[in-house]
Amino acid sequence: MTNPESLLKLVDARIEEYRSGLSDSNLYSPIAYMMGLGGKRMRPVLTLLGCELFEGRAEDALEPALAIEVFHNFTLLHDDIMDNAPVRRGLPTVFKKWGTSSAILSGDVMSIHACHILAEMNHPRSLDVIRELNRAAIEVCEGQQMDMDFEMYKSVDLDQYIEMIRLKTACLLAGALRMGAIVAGAPEADTKLISDFGENMGIAFQIMDDYLDVFGDQEKVGKQTGGDIIAGKKTFLVLEALALSHGTEREEFSELISDRTMEATSKVEKVIAIYRKLGVPEATLKAADNYVNRAMEALNSIAAPDHRKQVILEYLNTIARRQH
Amino acid sequence: MTNPESLLKLVDARIEEYRSGLSDSNLYSPIAYMMGLGGKRMRPVLTLLGCELFEGRAEDALEPALAIEVFHNFTLLHDDIMDNAPVRRGLPTVFKKWGTSSAILSGDVMSIHACHILAEMNHPRSLDVIRELNRAAIEVCEGQQMDMDFEMYKSVDLDQYIEMIRLKTACLLAGALRMGAIVAGAPEADTKLISDFGENMGIAFQIMDDYLDVFGDQEKVGKQTGGDIIAGKKTFLVLEALALSHGTEREEFSELISDRTMEATSKVEKVIAIYRKLGVPEATLKAADNYVNRAMEALNSIAAPDHRKQVILEYLNTIARRQH
Repeated sequence: MTNPESLLKLVDARIEEYRSGLSDSNLYSPIAYMMGLGGKRMRPVLTLLGCELFEGRAEDALEPALAIEVFHNFTLLHDDIMDNAPVRRGLPTVFKKWGTSSAILSGDVMSIHACHILAEMNHPRSLDVIRELNRAAIEVCEGQQMDMDFEMYKSVDLDQYIEMIRLKTACLLAGALRMGAIVAGAPEADTKLISDFGENMGIAFQIMDDYLDVFGDQEKVGKQTGGDIIAGKKTFLVLEALALSHGTEREEFSELISDRTMEATSKVEKVIAIYRKLGVPEATLKAADNYVNRAMEALNSIAAPDHRKQVILEYLNTIARRQH
Repeated sequence: MTNPESLLKLVDARIEEYRSGLSDSNLYSPIAYMMGLGGKRMRPVLTLLGCELFEGRAEDALEPALAIEVFHNFTLLHDDIMDNAPVRRGLPTVFKKWGTSSAILSGDVMSIHACHILAEMNHPRSLDVIRELNRAAIEVCEGQQMDMDFEMYKSVDLDQYIEMIRLKTACLLAGALRMGAIVAGAPEADTKLISDFGENMGIAFQIMDDYLDVFGDQEKVGKQTGGDIIAGKKTFLVLEALALSHGTEREEFSELISDRTMEATSKVEKVIAIYRKLGVPEATLKAADNYVNRAMEALNSIAAPDHRKQVILEYLNTIARRQH
């Protein structure tokens, strides 16, 4: 099995080839820009790892890997318009640089490109891979809509939150692994298991993201502690705190997190104090652990050599360490 | 061969089935709304006609027909955001009713649905049909970008304009026919010919659209004469007038059409007078005729019975009469 660093090189080279094939125009330049902003390329690497887990050749999964990264970047491009986000990776977002219309249209082409790459790849199972991309793609949109809906809801419960991050984030990670497994010709049962592994890992990652924003080592996280608190985001921690509190305590917390006038540092400190008092950090870590355990159960059930599974686990650990 | 009215009923029933399968949510309600605004359903009917021309069963092309109509409506939904258009078919546009973010996201799902419908249709040539949709879809986006670019250009020549309408409109009509032909198992040469027919007809339709906006029977057209002139649109007529005029005459015309202060009726009258003087109506009809002739040449070369070809021609004539 190839090491993830070598797989990343394969992916990067294919992305560069894709970018260099885009003409210099108002339609395609934003795509080249977006795909050139970098990132961990976690989804395409997972596709190649999913393929190699079942003894497929990484090269055969390179087009699905590219397709899923193009699709992922399309969702980021359109999300930036919806979130009115001015900056991505320290550079202006596409809609800030080229305007909203161009950003919509270039994103549209990226979404079509993702399917186009798969339809043209000339593999006996390309139709199955297209189906997987479509299913994951629809789920990502449903998750994004849930996320937008939550902003208008007075209350969101933990189950709804988990369902939102499952759709918005975890399903595409699952899809990435599944597409690799399909290309390798994995049996359907194993394809389902590697998908379950990816989905549960994706949920755990997202919960840990929320956790580390508040309780992470500030230097390692590389961003302000409590950024989510300041931004007034409904995170797993907020919803867990609401679930663990009652009566006036719950009302006071509810008022505190929605207070937009309080000085930032003081607000973060107050929220953290309540989190600790309620046992939110422990409950959050327990929830993340629960999803990691489910993921491990799925991975352990797959009929593949342990050392191959180990490569995927180590890769995800590296990503988690780098991220946090 | 089934008559177009019956094919339209098939299409309408399938669209209703699609709409009723969409859940009542902020993501899917805009899609049901958009697909329920009506329209001629020209593209899906052409897909069924393209299938029957080569002795395929219309029912077998119903999924591609639905897919192309969903795709077409996705482009209209996103175009309305880009054009900041408040009204479509007498009703508020999706982005006016649900907001820009929902309009972007619901459009994204429609684009994915179009491919999803084809990927799930269970037909031996579904991968080929997906390829055709992707190619046409990319061309539509390229055409939309050209159209947006033209707004910023000082001058656009007739060839560029034809290329823009070819990509933005004609390619999808061609794709609609081609997808039907592929499902019917038509030989590649004939698939190419029916595609050429659709593309040239599409260009002729678009030129006639521009012509009839100014020289059409006002009552039949059902809209204000010279709407394009008042809106300051770069139409085939404007570009033809610029091509046929020289020196100060050209400069004066150029100033006239970009004048945004002049009273509407007076501006329309002045522009029409110049069009007549330069022979623009004749040149425009000649250009449209030229594309109709190319279309007929392609159609005549197809190895299919004349009475089947006749049904397609009569259908397009009916559409043209209703439109104009």
